[in-house]
Formats: sequence, structure tokens, C-alpha cells
Amino acid sequence: MTEPQNPHYSDNVQTHLKQVEALLAKHALVEEVAHKEMIPRAERHELIDRLLHKQHLTLLRSKLDGLHAADIAYILEALPIEQRLLVWDLVKSDRDGEILIEVSDAVRESLIATMNREELSAAAGQLDTDEIADLAPDLPQNVMRDVFKSLSVEEREQLRSAMTYSEDSVGALMDFNMVHIRDDVSLEVVSRYLRRFDELPDHTDQIFVVDRDEHLKGVLSLNSIVVNEPEVIVSSLMRTDIIKLHTDEKAAQAALAFERYDLVSAPVVDEDGKLVGRVTVNVVLDFVRTESESDLLNQAGLLEEEDVFASVWKSAKNRWVWLGLNLCTAFFASRVIGNFEGTIEKFVALAALMPIVAGIAGNSANQTTTIIIRSLALGQITQGNAGRLLFKELAISGLNGLVWGGVAGLFAYFLYHNTALSVVMMSAMLLNLIAGALVGLLIPLAMHRLGRDPAIGSSVLLTAITDSGGFFIFLGLATIFLMK
Amino acid sequence: MTEPQNPHYSDNVQTHLKQVEALLAKHALVEEVAHKEMIPRAERHELIDRLLHKQHLTLLRSKLDGLHAADIAYILEALPIEQRLLVWDLVKSDRDGEILIEVSDAVRESLIATMNREELSAAAGQLDTDEIADLAPDLPQNVMRDVFKSLSVEEREQLRSAMTYSEDSVGALMDFNMVHIRDDVSLEVVSRYLRRFDELPDHTDQIFVVDRDEHLKGVLSLNSIVVNEPEVIVSSLMRTDIIKLHTDEKAAQAALAFERYDLVSAPVVDEDGKLVGRVTVNVVLDFVRTESESDLLNQAGLLEEEDVFASVWKSAKNRWVWLGLNLCTAFFASRVIGNFEGTIEKFVALAALMPIVAGIAGNSANQTTTIIIRSLALGQITQGNAGRLLFKELAISGLNGLVWGGVAGLFAYFLYHNTALSVVMMSAMLLNLIAGALVGLLIPLAMHRLGRDPAIGSSVLLTAITDSGGFFIFLGLATIFLMK
Repeated sequence: MTEPQNPHYSDNVQTHLKQVEALLAKHALVEEVAHKEMIPRAERHELIDRLLHKQHLTLLRSKLDGLHAADIAYILEALPIEQRLLVWDLVKSDRDGEILIEVSDAVRESLIATMNREELSAAAGQLDTDEIADLAPDLPQNVMRDVFKSLSVEEREQLRSAMTYSEDSVGALMDFNMVHIRDDVSLEVVSRYLRRFDELPDHTDQIFVVDRDEHLKGVLSLNSIVVNEPEVIVSSLMRTDIIKLHTDEKAAQAALAFERYDLVSAPVVDEDGKLVGRVTVNVVLDFVRTESESDLLNQAGLLEEEDVFASVWKSAKNRWVWLGLNLCTAFFASRVIGNFEGTIEKFVALAALMPIVAGIAGNSANQTTTIIIRSLALGQITQGNAGRLLFKELAISGLNGLVWGGVAGLFAYFLYHNTALSVVMMSAMLLNLIAGALVGLLIPLAMHRLGRDPAIGSSVLLTAITDSGGFFIFLGLATIFLMK
Repeated sequence: MTEPQNPHYSDNVQTHLKQVEALLAKHALVEEVAHKEMIPRAERHELIDRLLHKQHLTLLRSKLDGLHAADIAYILEALPIEQRLLVWDLVKSDRDGEILIEVSDAVRESLIATMNREELSAAAGQLDTDEIADLAPDLPQNVMRDVFKSLSVEEREQLRSAMTYSEDSVGALMDFNMVHIRDDVSLEVVSRYLRRFDELPDHTDQIFVVDRDEHLKGVLSLNSIVVNEPEVIVSSLMRTDIIKLHTDEKAAQAALAFERYDLVSAPVVDEDGKLVGRVTVNVVLDFVRTESESDLLNQAGLLEEEDVFASVWKSAKNRWVWLGLNLCTAFFASRVIGNFEGTIEKFVALAALMPIVAGIAGNSANQTTTIIIRSLALGQITQGNAGRLLFKELAISGLNGLVWGGVAGLFAYFLYHNTALSVVMMSAMLLNLIAGALVGLLIPLAMHRLGRDPAIGSSVLLTAITDSGGFFIFLGLATIFLMK
């Protein structure tokens, strides 16, 4: 894999992008001139061919050839769809595979849509089996059949197993590029064996020691091969107190292990303790980034990562489930208010004050939920301390209710000079904040217990309850104490 | 560094936590019994000493001795404050340093508060200079003076420079544990040199090649030492097309480079191209995790990571800035409504419908902002495509306005059988969604241009505008078209 030439990488990919954009702009300009001058289509084509394909596009192509696959992926993601496809056409076809692996799901779809069966099969053929498995959901069936035929028996087995792991399991992060040795040989023998490789697989910081039946017995760090004398025997150097992952463990758990123990790679074993693959830190880093992004996207009510240049229609669909849900809860809240129209007619000030009660409780409950979801993800909430947390969150919201409810009560008094109204305002704030804390704590706990991801959907439920609840409490109290 | 003994790590740290909790519970039980039976304080102390310090606590201590520092940090974070301090007391003091580095900022504060000058100096003395720099903000001045005195001249220089880098720069991620060699020697010589180390620094996947003046000339991967013959000369194997980081670059940029190029370590150079340190992937992984968490916390309006067992008072303060800000914007929105009290008095249905207009636009604008902030972070938004993005977001919100505005209009008609009201409802939804998209796009772009982090504060501003704006548009239209 070629690394980017420019040593000061950070302007690097941005600079690459600007250069590509400049070349594309020149290209577009010439095309526009040809178009404006009304040159007949056939001639125009020839003209463009001469002017561009010989100039800008050649420049662009050679520029692309010099770039790292990840940089090309970045540029493809940052370009609008027509320019993206133009650049994609210019990329050497023997790099299609590695680039398809690097781009985001949304952009990958747009690229694959332009490729025919042969191109796709060729691209997949350039990849390792674990990478093919990542690509598989986006490939047409006939392409997958072609790919399957082209693999060795062992590779087919790998691909088959890689495709069965669920997306959030260690199996989905795993690759099969591991080096393994026996424990009864000397470092000298190991070195001689390793020299037969042109290059060790990426991220080989340790070599796996297995027995005759492929059971993992220990690991030998590359480090220890380098600092020890050649005659030392593997078994005396290898470490046996190692961190093994299992194919069916949660990927998020594996990521925590990498973070906690500062791993570069970790062996993966099956139920019998047989070595089946390894997970490397680069995959974990991508996983952590993707997870954190999907948390942010979910919180904002986006189904999935969006290609910034996707069509309006496609983007809108990505956002509709959430908006639709919110509209339903808003309708419900609206009906709650509707039931108190008589009260509002008499005290129109209530209409002006009620959004305050609902809004602040929503914010406060959202803070509670965020803290709880984070603690759940880290496994910090146990049966022993859940009660204590509940008490703490209730105490905070009670304190908030007194402080901010007091401020809001004063605000109401200052405007409307009605003591009863102020007291109603303050009491409603206090009650709704406490209700929000309860709900903000119980929703994620309940979802967690039901085995669902508490980060998805908690906020819609929460807002629904603090809005409708807030209106109900405030207008209900007002009806009781102001309507006498 | 000891790795955890249990090979199947994932139940591991949870199991450790449960075991520690069980021991603590037994400890608490005995203490309670002693207390209940009204044994005089002095005797009780003796009794406890005998019963506990000899039993549970000894068990607990030996349990802790066997754990990885990161696991102890995890357990400390998951325990309420009294139990946390009890466990902290039992940890061997020669591990204080590495554990203080591992725990979260909030928990670190609680631990440091219980330690005296000597203990803190000793703990800091166990650390590398880059780690001391991380700890420095939490240490009292006199401790830092002690530490400084105990360092060598070179280390003092390192510590001084490490402490000057801003928190979000590459300098803050950097360590000084690098191995460097010259380019005119053979692998044999390199191997002999490396064997003088007991162990290479963690995450040494490559060795840095420097000239006489410490200028970085290239890197030699450990990998290539292992697979090549001993007589090969370094200069013929080393890679010169390398990724160098600069001390003053943004840490986030360095993290992107690690993700993009799958790095394990990267050299850091100063302005003159001299090698000054290195960044390793474990630090980057922690950085990415911390950043993503602080994004989530900021989005929910929490100033910083919260110790789940912090006091009510401390937690409340962490949440108040945001709630206070939101209360101000809610007051403003309330005044907007207050100005239309005459209209609401006549058409009380408006009070029930207005939260729908404000809410949906807020959600939609939040989706826009999230997409834009993400694209900004990835550097995907250029001058060339900003206009196109604006058009796209306006088109989506227009579409949403027609669809969801239409649904809301029907909802209003169904309830109140007033065509004019329905049309006002639909128009207000459409206008407010478009306004929301504009604001949702322009706020992060403006903050980005001003050099501020668009992830912080965008949402408060956004909600303020879609709420007040929604009420104004809806009630304004209603006043014009329904009050004739």
C-alpha cells in the first residue's frame, strides 16, 4: 500500500481535494465553452477529447495514481455526484477494491451503481475474504457467485463464516491475516520462517503460538523476537496470560478491551479455543469512530450516515421516520392542551408560559438520560448502585425545580402580577422536572434490560413525556387553583 | 505492565467489579454489626481490625494486586465515593501513578483530594514526563516543584515543552519513548542495539532514522527488520515517504491521519524537521473516544464528563449553564407568544397548535446542523459546494414543509373545521421549516468561520430561533388572516 508522498500530511488531503477540484473546474469550463459555441455534438466530443482527455484528465489521472486509497475515498466523498463519478472513472481499475472498502456506505452505493458485473467481480477479487464480507451486502447476487467461484476452498470457508457474523460482533471486525508458529522452536527458526514473507501482514505486533490442533497457546511479540538472542526457545518467551476475543462477543466490548489494555492486535478463538482470526487496532479505531458518529446521528434523528451530495429525495427519506414520530407526539401534546382550552381562554397568560415548563424539563431529562446511557455503555450501573443513582437524579431535579422554578415563578409574577399563577408556575416546573428525571432514568434502564440500544429512540419518548406531561401538569394545576 | 489473567476478558472487568463489590458489602456488613451492638469505638476498631483487615480487606488487596491498572481505574469509577476511597487506600502505592493516569478527570480529582504532598510526588515520580504533563493541571504547585526537582535535565526540558502544548494539539498526545538509529548501519547492528533494551517501548512498530542533528530522515519498520537478512543496510530499507506530525497541529487532524492511513505510531517533528517525539495509536483511540463523548455530552448540555457518584451539588453545577441559557431563550419565546395574547384569546386553538409548528422545525433544523457539523469536521465543505448544500437543505425542508405541513394542516382541519386556520398552520410549518434549515446551515458555518467549535452551543441557538420564530410566524399569520 502506498503512503501519501507529501510528508506534512495534514494539509495533504485537503490540498489534494483542492487540486482535484481545480482540475475538474477547468474541465467543466472547457466543456461549457464547447457547449456555448454550439459546436455539433460529434465534433464537440472530438474537441473535448483533444482538449481535456489529453490535458486536465491526464493530469487528474496521474494525480490520483499517486494518492493513497484512503485519500481517494475522501475526495470521492467530498465531491458532488457527477464529479465523483468522473473521478471514479479515472481511478485505475486495479484499485477499485481497496477504495470501495474505504468509502462510506452511502458513497459506496453510488459508486457500485455505475459498475457492471465484470468490474465488480474484478474489484472484489482484489480483496481479502474479510473485506469481501464487508462489501457483500452491497453487491448483486451474481457478482457474489462469481467471486465465490474464484476463491480457494479455505477462502470460501473464511468468507462463509465471515458473512454469518452479526454486524456488531467481534467476527465482523476480524481478519484472517495472522502468522502462527509452534512453541518448541527457537527464535532463529522463527526468524527464518518470517523471512520467507515479503512483508508481514499489517499490524503484526505479535505472532500467535498454536498447538497441532490450532488451539491458541500464547503469543510472541515481534518486540521480543527483536530484543532476544536467536537461540531462545519460543515457549520460554511467549506470553500465556493473553487477551483472547471470541467471534460472538460484542464488538463494542472488544473495542473497550483495546482501549483499556492498549492493544495493537488480539487473537480471536472459537468455542473450542481454536485460533480463527485476529482483530487489529485500525479496525477498532474505525469502529469506535463509526459508532460515535451513529450515536450523534441517531440523537439528531437521522437513520444513517448521509452522503452530503445525496439527492433531496434520498436525504428526505433518511430524515422522515424521526420527523413523523415527532409529529405524532406533537399531535398528542397538542390534544393535551386542547383539553384545557377553557382554562386558557380565561387565563391567556398560560399559553405564553406553558412552553417554558415543557422545555426546561425536556432539557433536564435529556441531561439525565445522557449520563445514564453513558454509564450503561461502560457497565458502571449495577443493581447495587441503581437506587443511589435514582436518588441522586431526583435530588438534582428537585434542586433544579426549586431554583429554575423559582426564577420562572418570579418571571411570571413580574409579567402578570398574579401570585397564584406564579405559584402554579413554580410547582409545575418542580413536578415536571422530577417527572423528567424519573423518566430520563427509567427509559434507558428499561431499554437496556430489554436488550435494546438505549441511545436509539430514548429522546423521542423523553420529549413526548416531558412535553405532554408538562402541559398537563401546568394546565391541570392552573385549572384547579385559578379557575375557582 | 501486567495484563489481566483471565483470558476471556469481556466478563473480566465486570466480574472483577462484582467481586470487589461483594467484598465491600461483607466489609460493610461487619462494620454495621459492630455499630449496632454499640461496642465502644475503641474496641470496635479493634474488632473491625481483627475481623476485616485480616479477612475481607486482605482478600480485596490481593485481588487488586492482580489487576491491570486500567481495570482498577474502571472499578474506581464504578464505585460510590466512600467505597472508592476504601479501594484506593488498598491499592499498592507504587501503582498510584499509572492508575491516576487511567481514571477519568472527575474521578481523578476525587482521588487526588485524599492524597498528601509526599504521596502525590511519589505517584508522579512513577510516570513518564508526557504523563506527568497530563496530570499537572490537577496537581498542587508544591507537588509539581518536587517532581520537577527529581527529574534529569533532559526530562525537565521534555516536561516543560509537554506542558506548553495546547490541549487539542499533537504535542498533547505525544510521548518521548522513541527508538532512533542512523541510516548507514546494517540490520545486524540495529538488532544488536535493540537487544540492549529489555523491552522496546509500547507500540514500537517502527524505529526512527535520524541524522547527526536529529533531523528525521525516514522510518524502519520492525516488520522489515524481521523479514530481511542481517547484512542489509538501513538506508536501503527505510521508508522516506512517511507521515510526520508537527507539535502544533490539531490533535483531531492527527487522529484522522491515524484512521486514514492505519497507523500504529507516527513521528512528531518540530519546525526544523527535528524529531521530538511520537504519537501512538492507543493515545489516538482514547482521544477519539473522549472527543466523541464530549460531543454527546455537549449536545445534551453538560459542561464536562460527570462522575456518576459526584455530589448532587457538583452535578447540578455541571448542568446549570445550559439550563439557565435555555430558560432565557424560553422566556424570550414566551414574550413572543405574550405579544399575541389578543389573537390567542379569540382563537384558543392556536395555543394548542403552536407547539407543533415550533417543535417539528426544531427537529428538522437539528438534523441539518448535525449533517453540516459532521461534514465540516471531515473538511468536506468547500467554497465550491457550500451553495449546493444550501440549495439541497432548503429543498429538503421545503419538501418536508409541504408533506408534514400538509399533515398538520389536515390535523388542524379535522379538529377545528376552519379552512383558514388549516392554511395558516400549513404555511407556518413550511416557512418555519425553511427558516430552520437556513439557520441550521448558517450557524455552524458561521461558527466554523469564526474558528469556534460548531458542536458547542449550536443547538441552543437553533432551538431559540425555531421556537421563537415558529411562534412568531404562526401567530403572526393567524393575526393577519384570522382576525379580520
